[in-house]
Amino acid sequence: MDQCTHYFGAGPAALPAEVKQQIQKDIILYADTGVSILELSHRSEQFSSIISSAQSLLRDLYVVPDNYQIIFMAGGATIQFDAVALNLVGDAKHASYLDTGFWSRKSANLASKYVDIKFVQGLEDNHRNICCIEPEQWNVDPETAYLHVTPNETINGVEFIQVKEMDVPVVADLTSCILMQDIDISNYGAVYAGVQKSLGIAGLSVVIIRDDLLDRVSEKTPDLLRYDLHVKENSIVNTCPVFACYVTQLMLDWVTRNGGVKMMVEQANMRAKLLYQAVDSNPKFVNNVCENNRSVINVAFNSSDKKVIENLLAAATKQGLIGLQGHRKAGGVRASMYNGTPMSVVQTLAELIELA
Amino acid sequence: MDQCTHYFGAGPAALPAEVKQQIQKDIILYADTGVSILELSHRSEQFSSIISSAQSLLRDLYVVPDNYQIIFMAGGATIQFDAVALNLVGDAKHASYLDTGFWSRKSANLASKYVDIKFVQGLEDNHRNICCIEPEQWNVDPETAYLHVTPNETINGVEFIQVKEMDVPVVADLTSCILMQDIDISNYGAVYAGVQKSLGIAGLSVVIIRDDLLDRVSEKTPDLLRYDLHVKENSIVNTCPVFACYVTQLMLDWVTRNGGVKMMVEQANMRAKLLYQAVDSNPKFVNNVCENNRSVINVAFNSSDKKVIENLLAAATKQGLIGLQGHRKAGGVRASMYNGTPMSVVQTLAELIELA
Repeated sequence: MDQCTHYFGAGPAALPAEVKQQIQKDIILYADTGVSILELSHRSEQFSSIISSAQSLLRDLYVVPDNYQIIFMAGGATIQFDAVALNLVGDAKHASYLDTGFWSRKSANLASKYVDIKFVQGLEDNHRNICCIEPEQWNVDPETAYLHVTPNETINGVEFIQVKEMDVPVVADLTSCILMQDIDISNYGAVYAGVQKSLGIAGLSVVIIRDDLLDRVSEKTPDLLRYDLHVKENSIVNTCPVFACYVTQLMLDWVTRNGGVKMMVEQANMRAKLLYQAVDSNPKFVNNVCENNRSVINVAFNSSDKKVIENLLAAATKQGLIGLQGHRKAGGVRASMYNGTPMSVVQTLAELIELA
Repeated sequence: MDQCTHYFGAGPAALPAEVKQQIQKDIILYADTGVSILELSHRSEQFSSIISSAQSLLRDLYVVPDNYQIIFMAGGATIQFDAVALNLVGDAKHASYLDTGFWSRKSANLASKYVDIKFVQGLEDNHRNICCIEPEQWNVDPETAYLHVTPNETINGVEFIQVKEMDVPVVADLTSCILMQDIDISNYGAVYAGVQKSLGIAGLSVVIIRDDLLDRVSEKTPDLLRYDLHVKENSIVNTCPVFACYVTQLMLDWVTRNGGVKMMVEQANMRAKLLYQAVDSNPKFVNNVCENNRSVINVAFNSSDKKVIENLLAAATKQGLIGLQGHRKAGGVRASMYNGTPMSVVQTLAELIELA
C-alpha cells in the first residue's frame, strides 16, 4: 500500500504492513514445504500446525476455558446466521434475538426459517439519544433456545460490552469486535465472527462454543455448517479455506506480539476518543449515540448539510484517507478502525473533522 | 517455489508461476485501488469488475449459452453436495446419482438428508478392468429431480466425458476436471466445481446453472447456499471471498491466454499418455482402469510389492516431485496433474516409473 493511503472501510479491513509482507514471501514458498501457501494441502502436517497454532493463540488471547471448542469454517457471518439456528435450536420452540440494529435483525431474519423468533428490545431510541438497554432489563423467556446478541453494530456505531450470566445460553456475533472488546467468554454459550475485519480476510469465520451445546444440531444441517463435525475433524471437514486460515493465524500472532486484547482495546479507545472529540467539537456534525454506547470501532456521524459531508470526504481522499462513506443505509461519514489502523491516520482524520 | 520442486497433490493444486508472481505484487497494492487485494471491498467497483471478468472469461471458455447463469459461492464442492439437493429437488420424490466411486457416493450421502436417493450404476468393475457404463445404458427414472454425475473420480483415476441429452436435468461435479474436459454445457442442467484444483485456491466454488432450474429452491435453504439469491446479487450476497474470486479470475485469464480449453485438454492428454505409457511398460505396476476411462488428470497406480512404491516415492522426492502418495483410501501412487503442471516434471516422473 502507498504510505499515504489508508482504507477506513467497514470490511474487508486493513491488514498490518508486516503481515502483508510476510504473506508476500509465503506466496512463493511457504516455510520448508516446497510449495506456495496457496498450494498447501489441507491434509499436510504444516496446515495442521497452522490450525493448532491459531486455536492456541486465540485460546490464550481470550482466556477461553477448556470446556469450549474453537473451530474455523468457510464463509462469513452470514452463513453463521443460519448455522446458529441449525446447530443450537434443538427442541426449543423459539429463539430470542436482542434487537440493536441492522445486523441483529438480519441474523434473526435468517434464523426465522427454522424457528420462531422472539425479539428482545436492546436499544432506547428517542431520535436524539440512542442508548443500549442494560442486560438486567432484557426480558428473556427462560424456555428460549438461546439469546442472540450483536455487541457492536457497525452501521450506526452502537456498542455494548457487558453481558451478565443468564439462564439461557447467550450467543454473540463478534464479527466487528473480536479481540477489540474485552469480553469474558465464560458468560457466553457460543460466540462467532467473520474474520475479515480484525483477524484476516473475507471467506472464513471462527466459532467458540461450549461443549454441552454441541448435541443440539438439527439433522437437516448441511455438513459444512455443523459445529459438531468441525470439532470432530478439527476444522478440516473438507478442502477448507487454507489460505484464509493461514492469514488468521498470522493476525492472531500479530495481536499477541502487539500486546494482546488489552492493548487492542486501549488503542481502539484512543482512536475513538480522538475522533469523537473532533466530531463533538464541530457543531456542523452530529452523533446521537449516548456516550457509554458509542462504538470505539465504527465511528459514524452525519451533518444536516450534505455539502459539509461531501467536502470532508473530498478533503480526506486528498490526504489518502478512503472508504469513509457511511453505510448505504445510513449516509454521512463512518470511520471503521480495526486493529490494522495506525494512530497517525486517525489523527489526520480528526484534524480534518475539526477544520471542516 | 524452488525450481526443482513440483507438487502432484490432488488439491489444493499447483498454480502457474506467473500467476503467483502477479498475486505477490497485488498483495501490497492492487491496481489503482490504493489498497491490497486482501483489503479490497466486496462492494467496490474493482471487485465488481473482477466478478464480471471471471464470468465473461468462463462463458467464453466453455461456450456457456445465454440461458445459463454463472455464480461464485463460498465453500468448496462439499457445500455444493448439500446445495444441489436444497436448490434442485423441488417437489420431486427422489434424486438420482450415478455411482462411479467415492465422490459420487459422498455427494449422494450428503443429499440424502433432504431427499430419497436412487443410485444408477456407473461402473462395471470385475476387479481386473474398471469401465464406465455408457450413458445409453444408464437407467434413470423420468420422475427423478435430476441425475447427478461425477465425470472425473480422483481417487481411482476414472473418467467419462460424454453425457447425452436426457429427459431429466443432469448435474455434474466438475471439481477435478473443469476446463480440462471438453464438455458441452448445454447437455447439463447445472455444473459446479470447487475451484482449488484448476481454477484457484480452496474456499470457493463456481456454479453454472440453467435459468429454468432457479425456481426449485427449498425455503429452508441457508441464504449463502441459494443459487437464485447469488444470481440476483451477482455473487455478492455478503462479504464474499474476495481474494479467492480474484485468484480464479487470474486463472481464467491464464487459461484463456494459454490456448483455452482445447489446449488444456491437449496438454492433459499428453501428460497422461506419458505416464500411462511408463506405468504400462513396467510390469511392477498395475492400473486396471480400461483405456477409454483412464483419467487424464489423476493417474493412479499400485504395485503388489509395497517396497516398489516406497522406493518410487523416495526417488521422486529426491527429484523434488512431492505429493505423490495415493489417496489414504486407495494407497499406491497418484499423480494429479492440473493446469499448473509443466510437461518437464511429468517427463521426469515418467522416467522414474520406467526405471523403478
